[in-house]
Amino acid sequence: MDDQTRYENLCQRVRETALLQSTSALLEWDQQTNLPSQADDYRCQQLTFLAGEVHRRRTDPELGELLNQLSDSPLTEDPESDQAAVVSNLKREFDKDVRVPAQLVEEITKATSAGHNIWVQARKQNDYASFAPTLSNIVDLMQQKADAVGYEDCRYDALLDEYEPGAKTADVTKVLEALRIELVPLIEKIAGSENRPSSEVLHRNFPVDAQKAFAKYASEQIGFDYARGRLDETHHPFCTEIGPNDCRILTRYDSSFFNSGFFGTLHEAGHGMYEQGLRSDQYGLPTGKYCSLGIHESQSRLWENLVGRSSAFWKFFFPVAQQHFPDALNDQTVDSFCASINTVQPSLIRVEADEATYNLHIIIRFELERDLIDGKLSVEDLPDAWNSKYESSLGITPPSFSDGVLQDVHWSAGLFGYFPTYSLGNLYASQFFASAEKEVGDLGVLFAKGEFSDLKLWLNDHVHRQGQKYSSAQLGKRVTGLDLSHESLIADLQSRLYPVYGL
Amino acid sequence: MDDQTRYENLCQRVRETALLQSTSALLEWDQQTNLPSQADDYRCQQLTFLAGEVHRRRTDPELGELLNQLSDSPLTEDPESDQAAVVSNLKREFDKDVRVPAQLVEEITKATSAGHNIWVQARKQNDYASFAPTLSNIVDLMQQKADAVGYEDCRYDALLDEYEPGAKTADVTKVLEALRIELVPLIEKIAGSENRPSSEVLHRNFPVDAQKAFAKYASEQIGFDYARGRLDETHHPFCTEIGPNDCRILTRYDSSFFNSGFFGTLHEAGHGMYEQGLRSDQYGLPTGKYCSLGIHESQSRLWENLVGRSSAFWKFFFPVAQQHFPDALNDQTVDSFCASINTVQPSLIRVEADEATYNLHIIIRFELERDLIDGKLSVEDLPDAWNSKYESSLGITPPSFSDGVLQDVHWSAGLFGYFPTYSLGNLYASQFFASAEKEVGDLGVLFAKGEFSDLKLWLNDHVHRQGQKYSSAQLGKRVTGLDLSHESLIADLQSRLYPVYGL
Repeated sequence: MDDQTRYENLCQRVRETALLQSTSALLEWDQQTNLPSQADDYRCQQLTFLAGEVHRRRTDPELGELLNQLSDSPLTEDPESDQAAVVSNLKREFDKDVRVPAQLVEEITKATSAGHNIWVQARKQNDYASFAPTLSNIVDLMQQKADAVGYEDCRYDALLDEYEPGAKTADVTKVLEALRIELVPLIEKIAGSENRPSSEVLHRNFPVDAQKAFAKYASEQIGFDYARGRLDETHHPFCTEIGPNDCRILTRYDSSFFNSGFFGTLHEAGHGMYEQGLRSDQYGLPTGKYCSLGIHESQSRLWENLVGRSSAFWKFFFPVAQQHFPDALNDQTVDSFCASINTVQPSLIRVEADEATYNLHIIIRFELERDLIDGKLSVEDLPDAWNSKYESSLGITPPSFSDGVLQDVHWSAGLFGYFPTYSLGNLYASQFFASAEKEVGDLGVLFAKGEFSDLKLWLNDHVHRQGQKYSSAQLGKRVTGLDLSHESLIADLQSRLYPVYGL
Repeated sequence: MDDQTRYENLCQRVRETALLQSTSALLEWDQQTNLPSQADDYRCQQLTFLAGEVHRRRTDPELGELLNQLSDSPLTEDPESDQAAVVSNLKREFDKDVRVPAQLVEEITKATSAGHNIWVQARKQNDYASFAPTLSNIVDLMQQKADAVGYEDCRYDALLDEYEPGAKTADVTKVLEALRIELVPLIEKIAGSENRPSSEVLHRNFPVDAQKAFAKYASEQIGFDYARGRLDETHHPFCTEIGPNDCRILTRYDSSFFNSGFFGTLHEAGHGMYEQGLRSDQYGLPTGKYCSLGIHESQSRLWENLVGRSSAFWKFFFPVAQQHFPDALNDQTVDSFCASINTVQPSLIRVEADEATYNLHIIIRFELERDLIDGKLSVEDLPDAWNSKYESSLGITPPSFSDGVLQDVHWSAGLFGYFPTYSLGNLYASQFFASAEKEVGDLGVLFAKGEFSDLKLWLNDHVHRQGQKYSSAQLGKRVTGLDLSHESLIADLQSRLYPVYGL
């Protein structure tokens, strides 16, 4: 077998695995949208079986052999080539996958699966003590996993790498700490302003059917392609791809709150446009796959916040919104409405936080989970550490575990290393947007005319079609010329929020 | 390994295959309901890959060895035991599967996949000649398949066996010929009646939302369990099961024709209640699987026609229908409405045919496809044969190929042996219904009060929970004490249709 044949063999294997993975994605999408109430047990059996098949294929020794042979082949010599990107990314994943013992994988699955229900109960009953032993066990298992995977500097690196390949805890700590130092006074300054716009209008009656129509219209207008995707309703919004031309976004509507449905849809549409912008002929291969969760989140946040909360965007969309919601919006102007969607208010719950305070929620979680994994914080001390960080960063103290340390699903699901990607996404979004504006020209002028394709095409070329050719840090540097930093995001927040507060 | 362990190993393998098959069913359901327009290619790749995995598992030599060992084991000695039913049915399927060469399977897949589009075009353009070579090829491949599978009496037996295991062409010919002989004069007698009820009311305006609500209400009332199923819309109604507690029925609504949505839903709900009535702990095994397509169709036809077109049924449902469709039904009585839904009119198109003439459409197709496979009729002579049978049986001649020989999808899909199961289903339905009435008591009295559970429970016990323990002929005999015959169906048609026509 020559190397070209080996490479084709490799791609064939991986594309077949992707057929199973995308089928699992449909099983999960259907579970969140259509599944009859009594069908959940069997659906879990289907998903478990497919997950086993996928794992078997991903850790197949023959796959490892192919990857070893191709790693040293002239075929992958050019690091900028598709072949090099495919082989190096697959090899990195394979080496990690085979290092984690099957028994540990099984224990983690069991612990997180049981852990989910225990967490749900604990949150409902505001009972941290009943969740603590489960969390201890999960932290312990994640430490074992990190040790199995291996790391150079700190244990958390090994977990972070799963969501943000190549990222290092030390770098993330540095950039998020710099962000925190700027964010806290920014939020205090806004809190001290005497000019306080109201967000009352957002809580008027917005009929759900009109919300659906408006959200679909807006997401289509910014560039989400409904010939290659869908928009549906669910409890916990998400975006999933079931094939190269089948990206499904899901949102939830609240008839007495405009933001959750509309900005939820823009957010998921941003994720979806990333998926739709990947090279579809490379589907299933690293060259056709998103770079990292941080880059993924940058796309959702860019469209949700930098585009969707801009006054230029609403110059075009506000008249359309008024047609959809005449009763709620008849006494509003585009300026009053824009002020309402750009208010800042420290709050307890991450998923309800505004754009500015959101990152403080994330930084708190990042620091805590990093210290848990690195053994510097105990599960017992976690609630106190949580509360004191909320006090010092946001000036509020959770009145209960349920509104504090128990609010998120992530830790019960073993998702350690995931949280920081939310803030990395916000940072990348601002840097990408600034570069796009520099290269494309004044985007606001286009938005005000309902034209979003220039921005979309720029993102397609510079971000989406790069797949996993570069790590997120490399991609950011290539696209923007800059290392990741807090500066663009802080500048964006200041320029959009300060005027709203008369600052 | 002892036989008990072998048996568990066997069941485990087959249940795993069922996980893949039910996953394919979801991919197909989603294809008919939700798939974005550009996603079809990849969906076909997913389905083809899973079909390959399923085929590999079903023809695995280790499976064959287990089946051979278990066939001779004391574990399967009692022919009434679950173990015997599981092993004998799986062995029958395995022996058939391995006899068909992989290359032939592939050729059939290719020919029918291409054949579908050629048929669609030919029907659209009323061009039989453009479809004839494709059909010749498919007939040839099906003959090869029949020869590979093997048969005793005639080649068509081998294909019929796939849909109606154990059935023989000679027996089916006999019972359908007897049916034809009684049906033709029955329909002529009705056609000659001077008392002609109108079906005009069925073509009034029936708003689709009200149709959906009414169809869902009625299907739930007769016993379809929505905690274990769904009702959705599609172009070509069907019923599919995606797990033991996930049966999905699909129907289509026409705002200017009551029957397609309502009786379509009752029909699919009948199929669905069969699936829901199977032993869910045996899911994936022959003991938890439907007996045959004929028995499946008996359940849909029983609820659609014997229940759903009875005057007792409408005594309960007509006032509810009037609430849903006040404009269309305000000048109707339950008697006038019942007459409308029981009219008989020879027509060209099978899927639009009434209950009486429907079987003639089927008998014609059965005779033609049997003769094609047995080499007694050529594809060239098919249109003439078709037309002359329509003339002699229904007294009408198709004015075009599209309304004649090109109207059905089945032959282009290679579904030879499928058609007769529709009429077998009608015959079984009448026999089952008569037995149920004999054992449960006057069902009409119950229907008029909206009570359908006695009938459903009787069917659960006598038909559904038997799975594949018996062949359809054996099951019919056990349940009704009778061999399959036309008598019950003819009696049902006479007793329901003659009064409508004043006969």
